[in-house]
Amino acid sequence: MLSKEQVFEALSGVNDPELHTSLTDLKMVREVVIENGKVDVTIALTLPNCPLREQIEADVREAIFDLGEVEDVTVHMTAMTIEERQALFGDPSEGAAAQYNRVRRVVAVMSGKGGVGKSFVTGLMATALSQSGYQVGVLDADITGPSIPKLFGLKGPLEAGPVGVCPLLSQGGVRVMSFTFLLQTEDQPVVWRGPLIGKAITQLWTDVFWGDLDYLLVDLPPGTSDAALSTMQSLPVNGIIIVTTPQSLASMIVRKAVHMAQLVGVPIAGVVENMAYFVAPDTKIRYDIFGPSHTSEVLELANAPLLAQLPLNPLVTTMCDGGKIEAITLPETEGLLTKFVEMVPSQLAAP
Amino acid sequence: MLSKEQVFEALSGVNDPELHTSLTDLKMVREVVIENGKVDVTIALTLPNCPLREQIEADVREAIFDLGEVEDVTVHMTAMTIEERQALFGDPSEGAAAQYNRVRRVVAVMSGKGGVGKSFVTGLMATALSQSGYQVGVLDADITGPSIPKLFGLKGPLEAGPVGVCPLLSQGGVRVMSFTFLLQTEDQPVVWRGPLIGKAITQLWTDVFWGDLDYLLVDLPPGTSDAALSTMQSLPVNGIIIVTTPQSLASMIVRKAVHMAQLVGVPIAGVVENMAYFVAPDTKIRYDIFGPSHTSEVLELANAPLLAQLPLNPLVTTMCDGGKIEAITLPETEGLLTKFVEMVPSQLAAP
Repeated sequence: MLSKEQVFEALSGVNDPELHTSLTDLKMVREVVIENGKVDVTIALTLPNCPLREQIEADVREAIFDLGEVEDVTVHMTAMTIEERQALFGDPSEGAAAQYNRVRRVVAVMSGKGGVGKSFVTGLMATALSQSGYQVGVLDADITGPSIPKLFGLKGPLEAGPVGVCPLLSQGGVRVMSFTFLLQTEDQPVVWRGPLIGKAITQLWTDVFWGDLDYLLVDLPPGTSDAALSTMQSLPVNGIIIVTTPQSLASMIVRKAVHMAQLVGVPIAGVVENMAYFVAPDTKIRYDIFGPSHTSEVLELANAPLLAQLPLNPLVTTMCDGGKIEAITLPETEGLLTKFVEMVPSQLAAP
Repeated sequence: MLSKEQVFEALSGVNDPELHTSLTDLKMVREVVIENGKVDVTIALTLPNCPLREQIEADVREAIFDLGEVEDVTVHMTAMTIEERQALFGDPSEGAAAQYNRVRRVVAVMSGKGGVGKSFVTGLMATALSQSGYQVGVLDADITGPSIPKLFGLKGPLEAGPVGVCPLLSQGGVRVMSFTFLLQTEDQPVVWRGPLIGKAITQLWTDVFWGDLDYLLVDLPPGTSDAALSTMQSLPVNGIIIVTTPQSLASMIVRKAVHMAQLVGVPIAGVVENMAYFVAPDTKIRYDIFGPSHTSEVLELANAPLLAQLPLNPLVTTMCDGGKIEAITLPETEGLLTKFVEMVPSQLAAP
């Protein structure tokens, strides 16, 4: 006859799909009642609104039916208390999430120079990757001048995850995390010295429940100071995408970022030239608004391929301002995506 | 009969025109020989190539002739040794220059957002002020992403001043100081954490012999972190010029800078909207490349006037890339200058 021990044993083979840990190890199996071939189990979810509720229920039913001699299975769902969660995962503010995350590739989007479109390129690539079926996250490492939330049209507040805090989900399914989500208003300044900035970025990595990701794109602020240093030292960055504009002035500062990546020993996967030119929508005449391109100097120093040249486009600007980056379709995106996917796994080691 | 003491007494009334201190206090008067109504004096200049040599000689002659009973005056010039200079002014790396500087107004050019043209606006205003007869300095506070040296076409090395180090002089006479002048190559990165960045900016203020300036413009990097904090806390900033672009995304981040200025209590003298539009050089059609303007949101929050709207212009970009910012003539400059001069002294207190 079927015993409780057999049911527990079966459920020790069922993993929480987000946490990659068995339900028994997570102390999620609370009660098992067996009567006349009917099994009643109570499962305590890590969170009451767990999005994987149905999958867990199906997995539990399947595992119990597989034991044989079972006529029916009823799964009751309850949720852990905060105290139970903390007993299990520790204080959520202390890096507890990191060990449950499985991030395959961390790619930093960097420039050195401000205002060249790092966030735009980050958003565009995240969207393209997500639309190709990859699980994608965006970590906004620009604490004092964040653009990512606005591009994706996202606002806080955040919700607690089973461990740590959960990123917000964009319309297209990109997991987005920005320090801005913790602010009361979007234009509230973060007047912090560098060490705090660095710590905040590290926490966006360790204390956020990113879950399983194929790609985590890290949108860096301008400069080669705390944010870039902390990202490269505290995160397992696989590669860097460099964003530049045609201007010689930009190229000079961008080359500083390339030098920094080389100093720190993180490979450069490719270069994107943004604001490359402008085509007048009415006359179709092309104007090199930021002058003739000096991007070849960057490519040469970085010893990396040009992934795309993106034009200035008022429609794109307006869509970005309206939080609709995921609705932007550009002819250049496909090439960018193909080259990005090609460069990141081939050139870069897995974490 | 004329005595040496009388000559020394007379020379104690002559000031070094840069250091605002008498020649006797500076121990510059080395030898006085009086023979038959002829006076021979030896003056030790603080630096051998002192640009004010002739003025000092004329002032010395005049002061001695004014004593009467003098038939002729001969002034011999020599220069102090490094040891003599250090005995007088202390170690040049320890803030010795600050007390000899007379800077009437310190104006920080800020944005929060990167790549909106802070350096361009700084360079344009410095040029316009200088061409109007003001003594102008530019302190490049963007340590990791400096644009100022390239805009003015300036390169190191620097030279020692009588106290501290001397800024470089642009073609148009603007005194320019950038940390870049200390680097071996322009694209060498400065991979520093925030506290060092803050210290470097403070030193560009205390250890540089700015001399007499009507305006010192401080070109801040993006963000509201160390550079902005150190500038506002360590320099006597009289006012802030905010630079923005039409984009809503830019406006949101620029408003963070406005909030920071308000938190720190530094008045905002005005706002410049850069990259406001683009007029095709051939068809003369105007395009709002960065979308409809959201600058009114910045003006409202800052409670400050719009000083100018500057268009995107490929010719201007090319001149900036070529180090010719001082040769740029824009129809908007005159209005910018007039409003700037008006806003800075009327609204802001003297240091």
